[in-house]
Amino acid sequence: MLLSVADRSTILAPLISAGWTHIKASDAITKTFLFPDFIQAFGFMTKVAIKSETLNHHPEWKNIYSKVEITWTTHDCKGLSGLDVQMAEFCDKAYSK
Amino acid sequence: MLLSVADRSTILAPLISAGWTHIKASDAITKTFLFPDFIQAFGFMTKVAIKSETLNHHPEWKNIYSKVEITWTTHDCKGLSGLDVQMAEFCDKAYSK
Repeated sequence: MLLSVADRSTILAPLISAGWTHIKASDAITKTFLFPDFIQAFGFMTKVAIKSETLNHHPEWKNIYSKVEITWTTHDCKGLSGLDVQMAEFCDKAYSK
Repeated sequence: MLLSVADRSTILAPLISAGWTHIKASDAITKTFLFPDFIQAFGFMTKVAIKSETLNHHPEWKNIYSKVEITWTTHDCKGLSGLDVQMAEFCDKAYSK
């Protein structure tokens, strides 16, 4: 379900503070994660992939060596949903470990 | 080492026939692989990731659900090398299994 206008101000603010960018045109959030090397970047992607599959909510992402650029949006509701917020928070948690 | 002009005609032709596109501006090759679902797409990426790490030659790639778009080029020689050909062939082999 699309995030309500009321929810957005409270829910998106902490993500923006954590480095996520809100792409208004596509109502998506995106962030670039940097790692020391490819193995650590792909290890992170594997964690996110498994969680994605568990929630049946998958990212749009790009990887070049130690850099992973992830974008979350929900095609079913044509914009940000609670699942995008949940996955963005999961990414930050997985990255910080 | 950059592929020689002589090598290119014989080496690149089979890859082009197999669906790879040569991007002249960046001297790279790119191909989009389609799978039935995310698990199979990410399984393919995992095989390619492990091989990449073994050869210390990593892709530039993008994944959206069941679609994986891979680009190979060699930054050290600013264009296509034998490693790109080897990895492109590995991708086709991994995909066909």
